[in-house]
Amino acid sequence: MIPLERLELSQDRLPDRWYNVAPDLPRAQDEMLDPATGEQASDDYLERLLPSALVAQDRSIERWIAIPEKVRDAYRAWRPTPLMRARALENYLDTPAEIYFKYEGGSPSGSHKLNSALAQAYFAKNQGIRRLVTDTGAGQWGSALALAGALAGIEVGVYMVRASYHQKPYRRHLMESFGARVEPSPGTGTEFGRKLLEQDPGHPGNEGTAVSEALEVVRADPDSRFSMGAFANHVLLHQTVVGLEAREQLDELCREPDYLIASVGCGSNMGGFALPWVPDKLSGAVNTQIIAAEPAACATLTKGTYRYDYPDAGGTGPMVRTYTLGHDFSPPPIHAGGLRYHGAAPLIGLLRHEGVLDAVAYQQVEVFEAARIAARLTGLLPAPETAHAIRAVFDVARRCREERRKATIVFCWSGRGDLDLGAYGRFNAGELRDVESFAEERAELARGLAS
Amino acid sequence: MIPLERLELSQDRLPDRWYNVAPDLPRAQDEMLDPATGEQASDDYLERLLPSALVAQDRSIERWIAIPEKVRDAYRAWRPTPLMRARALENYLDTPAEIYFKYEGGSPSGSHKLNSALAQAYFAKNQGIRRLVTDTGAGQWGSALALAGALAGIEVGVYMVRASYHQKPYRRHLMESFGARVEPSPGTGTEFGRKLLEQDPGHPGNEGTAVSEALEVVRADPDSRFSMGAFANHVLLHQTVVGLEAREQLDELCREPDYLIASVGCGSNMGGFALPWVPDKLSGAVNTQIIAAEPAACATLTKGTYRYDYPDAGGTGPMVRTYTLGHDFSPPPIHAGGLRYHGAAPLIGLLRHEGVLDAVAYQQVEVFEAARIAARLTGLLPAPETAHAIRAVFDVARRCREERRKATIVFCWSGRGDLDLGAYGRFNAGELRDVESFAEERAELARGLAS
Repeated sequence: MIPLERLELSQDRLPDRWYNVAPDLPRAQDEMLDPATGEQASDDYLERLLPSALVAQDRSIERWIAIPEKVRDAYRAWRPTPLMRARALENYLDTPAEIYFKYEGGSPSGSHKLNSALAQAYFAKNQGIRRLVTDTGAGQWGSALALAGALAGIEVGVYMVRASYHQKPYRRHLMESFGARVEPSPGTGTEFGRKLLEQDPGHPGNEGTAVSEALEVVRADPDSRFSMGAFANHVLLHQTVVGLEAREQLDELCREPDYLIASVGCGSNMGGFALPWVPDKLSGAVNTQIIAAEPAACATLTKGTYRYDYPDAGGTGPMVRTYTLGHDFSPPPIHAGGLRYHGAAPLIGLLRHEGVLDAVAYQQVEVFEAARIAARLTGLLPAPETAHAIRAVFDVARRCREERRKATIVFCWSGRGDLDLGAYGRFNAGELRDVESFAEERAELARGLAS
Repeated sequence: MIPLERLELSQDRLPDRWYNVAPDLPRAQDEMLDPATGEQASDDYLERLLPSALVAQDRSIERWIAIPEKVRDAYRAWRPTPLMRARALENYLDTPAEIYFKYEGGSPSGSHKLNSALAQAYFAKNQGIRRLVTDTGAGQWGSALALAGALAGIEVGVYMVRASYHQKPYRRHLMESFGARVEPSPGTGTEFGRKLLEQDPGHPGNEGTAVSEALEVVRADPDSRFSMGAFANHVLLHQTVVGLEAREQLDELCREPDYLIASVGCGSNMGGFALPWVPDKLSGAVNTQIIAAEPAACATLTKGTYRYDYPDAGGTGPMVRTYTLGHDFSPPPIHAGGLRYHGAAPLIGLLRHEGVLDAVAYQQVEVFEAARIAARLTGLLPAPETAHAIRAVFDVARRCREERRKATIVFCWSGRGDLDLGAYGRFNAGELRDVESFAEERAELARGLAS
């Protein structure tokens, strides 16, 4: 009956600076390349795509970047977020480890995504940009940006993966309720979308196609800029409020994390949560293992290669070096929420490549099994993304049991699963399958979209 | 960009007692009657239906009832809840009034309902009861009880209004994820359900039919008890944590409410929010107007009559005196969430009858219009129930503007609308209509369910 102990952090301890890991990396990041020239991307090139403040943040080597007061005021509607101890989960796993999580599911948009969405909407508005255009898969990012756009008074256009647009209308209704304009990707409003639909009327779309369409629209309108929900340095920067708060909360408890665990699609949640510990880990001041949990069906960090690639299916965005499954990779229709992007954020890729971060991949049925257990023991329904982290926590906690080892496990509960109940319904009905058997399901999906 | 100012209450100020209004009522409550005999319902009769601790609470005349420590521990996962000031809404309404709301939408189940669900699950478990059986309409109550049952380790059976069971599967998936068994009402598992389906294979069900079926199941199983999401005194009692916290928060701000506004289906949200102010209102210590907002299509307090009636469609439950539209009333399929019950909680009925509480009724389109505006200005999507309260806030705030009158408006944001996005989708598409034109829609629904 005691699901959770909640540790609050008072509002006066809301961080006033984001942490930029750039000066503390084991080596400098590789340059971003202009896809047309293969040369280093210029500021002019990038500022045509992104608000200029964000381009500056992407390239900054300042360790601390001030959070604008208006963004902090907006954060205060739900931040600082609580750190929870899940004793019932410890008991269930029969582990000597203590299990804590930073709970981002209580944000108005339901996930950590709002931390960056509000910042991006603020900087764009400040620059006089009329519209932000973005891509979204499951819709957590799109929902967050739609909400931030409504609060900041800036238009939002969203290219939503076509299969989700048609089969999961709830997040679309949410974005539209906040005033965003949502288009399916591929769709008929862009040249790239029309080309894909001509080739394959049943094309289900993916994050890569949605990024290509969003970029095409931005290039055609001088008053529009592209907005990213993950991937770019500035997004991970904005998310560091999560890790900075968690550090303060763990300090109050006199705990140091032995394990920091988060799910990774692109890595904004992982980065925001774990980056603040990187300098201490590199210096040896802490001995923390950082574990990224990803879906086996889109195993970017465990099956991808570290190389230059495009961020979008059309190959029109700036090239970066990171772990990638290839920009033309189209993941199977697993219920992994937003964890279905072909590439990792370059910062996450670099840390993985340098051995700072470990990665594990899970099949979706074992992920949902862990999620349902955690829901019943905590009272909180995890987003499918978060469920990947929970699955990894189960493994680590059980290892601690076997080794009779006390440890402090801290994970990021990145979002709530209220809008993923279709997937839970399929899981409850025994209809979810693992990735090997998807060929048939995929063909069925394509037939449905083409008809 | 500053949607909300959030006033927290520290965890050490979580109430340790519920407030029981019984000794402070303008007159004693009318007795509950056994439907078979027409005589006062005996303790034996009631304890066969409900956990005995709850029967005792229903009849208690103690002003304060201790919250068991385990229930308080469970509350601490999200309580005390914040009080918010909605300055952007004040600006939009151009009102000299200050607008505050108590935010219950951040509970794990998404609404205030969990306050009572946890208490009921605790008392039932404590008594060795194996299973709680309940009714649910839109599913907020069923979700809360399913979650509480999982945490307390007690089985939960839910009779869900058949139209919702089939057309809004998400809350069913949520309940099932927490381990509850969910049946449509009317269904084939009870005599009453079979009878209704024989008469009308397209019967969409309503809260009244679901209560009858739940009661039938409880009567057939000595280890089961009935669980109520609203209506009974004990439910309103458990919800008083909401109002008690809000009083402390307003005291800290040196504010006294001129208006307390909440939506009313049965009245657990209204009661829990406003009852703690009733003694001061009756004594004249405060001059607070208490306003109940209800749907015009199920206008219990504004169109019902004050008389004895049954709580269920089958007329098998204990009779109480309250405002009712008749136990055989079947509301049209409006999107008003849980506000579609034929009767008010007896405590709310009595206060309305004695003039302590005022009521207003709204059509659904104007309710959703207010909800969408509030969502864009606060960043929080209201549940349809809450949207009724918001609609009333708009009226009061505009009246203050016209009269150039400063005032403190406080309302209860009873739940979040994440699981009501189907209704928002219909509203956004211009498909929601007001109650006059429902006959056709109703027939269509019945045909769909019969096929």
